[in-house]
Amino acid sequence: MEGRQPYSATLLIYCEDKRGIIAAVTDFVNENSGNIIYLDQYVDAEDKVFYMRVEWELENFVISPDKIDTIFKESLAKRFNMNYSLHFSDEKLRMAVFVSKLPHCLYDILSRSHSGEWPLEIPLIISNHDTLRHIAEIFGIEYFHIPITPETKREQEEKQIQLMEERNIDFIVLARYMQILTDEFIKPYSERIINIHHSFLPAFAGAKPYHAAHERGVKIIGATSHYVTADLDEGPIIEQDVARVTHNDTVKDLIRKGRDLEKIVLSRAILSHFKRKTLVHKNRTIIFN
Amino acid sequence: MEGRQPYSATLLIYCEDKRGIIAAVTDFVNENSGNIIYLDQYVDAEDKVFYMRVEWELENFVISPDKIDTIFKESLAKRFNMNYSLHFSDEKLRMAVFVSKLPHCLYDILSRSHSGEWPLEIPLIISNHDTLRHIAEIFGIEYFHIPITPETKREQEEKQIQLMEERNIDFIVLARYMQILTDEFIKPYSERIINIHHSFLPAFAGAKPYHAAHERGVKIIGATSHYVTADLDEGPIIEQDVARVTHNDTVKDLIRKGRDLEKIVLSRAILSHFKRKTLVHKNRTIIFN
Amino acid sequence: MEGRQPYSATLLIYCEDKRGIIAAVTDFVNENSGNIIYLDQYVDAEDKVFYMRVEWELENFVISPDKIDTIFKESLAKRFNMNYSLHFSDEKLRMAVFVSKLPHCLYDILSRSHSGEWPLEIPLIISNHDTLRHIAEIFGIEYFHIPITPETKREQEEKQIQLMEERNIDFIVLARYMQILTDEFIKPYSERIINIHHSFLPAFAGAKPYHAAHERGVKIIGATSHYVTADLDEGPIIEQDVARVTHNDTVKDLIRKGRDLEKIVLSRAILSHFKRKTLVHKNRTIIFN
Amino acid sequence: MEGRQPYSATLLIYCEDKRGIIAAVTDFVNENSGNIIYLDQYVDAEDKVFYMRVEWELENFVISPDKIDTIFKESLAKRFNMNYSLHFSDEKLRMAVFVSKLPHCLYDILSRSHSGEWPLEIPLIISNHDTLRHIAEIFGIEYFHIPITPETKREQEEKQIQLMEERNIDFIVLARYMQILTDEFIKPYSERIINIHHSFLPAFAGAKPYHAAHERGVKIIGATSHYVTADLDEGPIIEQDVARVTHNDTVKDLIRKGRDLEKIVLSRAILSHFKRKTLVHKNRTIIFN
Repeated sequence: MEGRQPYSATLLIYCEDKRGIIAAVTDFVNENSGNIIYLDQYVDAEDKVFYMRVEWELENFVISPDKIDTIFKESLAKRFNMNYSLHFSDEKLRMAVFVSKLPHCLYDILSRSHSGEWPLEIPLIISNHDTLRHIAEIFGIEYFHIPITPETKREQEEKQIQLMEERNIDFIVLARYMQILTDEFIKPYSERIINIHHSFLPAFAGAKPYHAAHERGVKIIGATSHYVTADLDEGPIIEQDVARVTHNDTVKDLIRKGRDLEKIVLSRAILSHFKRKTLVHKNRTIIFN
Repeated sequence: MEGRQPYSATLLIYCEDKRGIIAAVTDFVNENSGNIIYLDQYVDAEDKVFYMRVEWELENFVISPDKIDTIFKESLAKRFNMNYSLHFSDEKLRMAVFVSKLPHCLYDILSRSHSGEWPLEIPLIISNHDTLRHIAEIFGIEYFHIPITPETKREQEEKQIQLMEERNIDFIVLARYMQILTDEFIKPYSERIINIHHSFLPAFAGAKPYHAAHERGVKIIGATSHYVTADLDEGPIIEQDVARVTHNDTVKDLIRKGRDLEKIVLSRAILSHFKRKTLVHKNRTIIFN
Repeated sequence: MEGRQPYSATLLIYCEDKRGIIAAVTDFVNENSGNIIYLDQYVDAEDKVFYMRVEWELENFVISPDKIDTIFKESLAKRFNMNYSLHFSDEKLRMAVFVSKLPHCLYDILSRSHSGEWPLEIPLIISNHDTLRHIAEIFGIEYFHIPITPETKREQEEKQIQLMEERNIDFIVLARYMQILTDEFIKPYSERIINIHHSFLPAFAGAKPYHAAHERGVKIIGATSHYVTADLDEGPIIEQDVARVTHNDTVKDLIRKGRDLEKIVLSRAILSHFKRKTLVHKNRTIIFN
Repeated sequence: MEGRQPYSATLLIYCEDKRGIIAAVTDFVNENSGNIIYLDQYVDAEDKVFYMRVEWELENFVISPDKIDTIFKESLAKRFNMNYSLHFSDEKLRMAVFVSKLPHCLYDILSRSHSGEWPLEIPLIISNHDTLRHIAEIFGIEYFHIPITPETKREQEEKQIQLMEERNIDFIVLARYMQILTDEFIKPYSERIINIHHSFLPAFAGAKPYHAAHERGVKIIGATSHYVTADLDEGPIIEQDVARVTHNDTVKDLIRKGRDLEKIVLSRAILSHFKRKTLVHKNRTIIFN
């Protein structure tokens, strides 16, 4: 779909801001004969935090891929006290999709995966209802119906986690999954659970945002994709978008217009995540361009 | 600026929804040889309320302008128990502008009035600071510095009201006026005070919305123009718009981008108001197109 | 999906603008005990043409559905020399989808149909390539591979038309179908063929618009859905939308961002069409809200 | 308005892309004790051209401001064969504004300058009509009425250039100046003349774009700000924006909506220019964020 990409490595870095970091990192790549094909950096001037994303071709790079991590750690990460992660362009992340009864985001996600638009594996779909099983089936993906009640939540979450561990899931997408996750569930998947909320957060957090938006008489509605944290609808925002509405639009119209917003916004957030374009600091995201 | 308009009358109507209202109103115009040049209507299906805006040329209309009100009231308004208002295309509304220290909305308003883009009179500007007097002066408009303290607020509001009454003010625009009005002030100007709030309401109501937006890490900021009611930032929304921001944008950047949003959104709201395109029902606006 | 709708009739009307049309039409509905649930009208002041869309509940309507057409024609259409069409809310239009090799619009269309979001039948997909057959298959829709060469075009179009006639196709969607249709094909489906063009028309008509947009260095790209006419990319525009791009975006990035625009814009155009919200006059559309 | 800025230097650089440029430039700043507060770079992978904007605080920088240019040239620019320009944060560019009869962009520009929002000098306004002199006067800016006929154009342009030279004009803004400039005029101000065109270029280049947009029935209108080149409406685009329109909008409505677009788009382009965020290559702009 996207043409053949060169084999490349990507570093996502953040650390205390100091003079010379960019020069040191770009020197590290250059001196080992790497060709930088992407560089973006950002400094939070208030908190003195430095963030960087750099990507380089490995074709002539003199350090072999399996040694980059060790050498980078010893030579640079320790010197600048960096937090970093290293990724390779041929990695194929494994994504779990959680749904309830609404199918529009699921169709969109599965279509992008199925068409090859997204280089992702989707080993399973998990739902508290059996409603959308037929969609999973036509796309040939395993579907697990795991009902949740207040009493069984923790126990059922354990089942979910076990399924995901068995399938080596890298990150989770809540594609209109209408359940609140417990902190125990969230913690091990910190910054790896992406939710779509059907409002322009922080407006209309909580349930029934389209009804609330209609009641308030707003002229624009929105959708927000964010990483899930212990505070409901309060996690770091990855992507938002909006659409105009008028007094003519009923709640049903808002829901219809919102559906398209939700699926597009969620898909953009997923793309940023698996392309390793996101970093999180103090409940805000840095989204590299 | 806008070319010569035909002389016309406009009716803004709302009442309980019943069969036959549109036919009755359009018959009233047609049978008296009026030529309808605008018709828009809306039914709130839930509350069974009917809203209508109709405009017609008066050139061949057989009822003389000064008698339309009486005849319409007797023949139609009573029959359908209508709330309505009648306006003529040569009316020139008189607008008071309230400001504090930020000039961008004021410049925009005065420019539009000064250029003839807006067929409005601006007899006075009122401010709790003397900061923007020089702008009023270059545009040749009276400027009243009326400082407000918690102790003097009611007393000073009385001065403001007296000034406005002397000048026959039709409606008030709060162009980043950083004071909360008392209910006593608001009541007589119900649905005739337009405010601009520098956020995408209901997100970030209250003070310092750009700081709050930055803190929350939103990817889109907004501005909201609304009629002022007793509940701060809770009045019926007339117009909203948004702009994209990124992690790169500091609070100062948000303020800069927000300035342009604020002035454009406020100006659109003022236009809708003086063109008689707005009706309010249950804290929501109907904005005819 | 959308909740149960009341059974209703819709009239789409256009004719020379004259006094009294709105009153006459609304009287027609009212006097026969219909309850108007939608009314929108527009007058092209320059050409003196009147357009109207009116929808009313049939529950208490005293004319039986099968007689509305005749009675309306005799009583009103003839009097005002109207062009009109009558539709009922339980009609389920039958749509043919034409594709080539790009799947994103097809997935979106089939998903909406499959989920029940759209009350449409899709009896067949036609393509000049066999590439997307597997998508048709998972959604259980007949797929016809009809290759086109300059020499065989008319002959193959005849096959296409025969297939559509056998299946009583109401309208055709070109979902990135990369073939130009002959006038002979278009004529019988006038105002019933919807295309998506991957640019903000009239900018970048013709082939490879994303390459052209990149070459020109635009800061915004777009997509345009329009009815197909004999003049390529010149038909009446139904819907457009845009997305921001920067100097950072390669042609591949434009194509990726454009895909989402294309599928959303095309779907909105299809919705307007099958909800009977479109009229065409002099190569422009009236899109009722 | 904007808070006190630190005293800083900015380098705008482009050259053939080679390994080590970023490292070399950041080393240059770091080793001389400069603190980088902004860095953005872009590589045109196709043409192998490297673009960079770097800004650093001068407070502890060991090279004195008047020597930076020479030292940078000798140490780095020659080595990498760079094109570059050096700027200091206390520079105040001098801008000439050209207008014809439409005032909206002029009001907006003068308001931003007058309020201190823009750290610019506007020493003069030049017009082929005397229409807007009163606006220049209230803002206290010299206004030169220099009528243009086909016969006198070159001669009058010479007068314009002389006036600008006397006033040390850095760049020119055509704020709806309805005259085509000759190549002789443009050449010495290459990449220093900013125009606003009232359409979404390349759609509707040339005269009367709103009439053309209405005729074509587009659903979105736009405005485009670009550097002026010898080819009319073909220069490198700096900024664009759009607004939705409907079949209801007359040409006059498009003109009204377009006015707001034009002034905001032009102002954003001026901001990017004087903040030294623009570079031009092969008729495209790089706009640093």
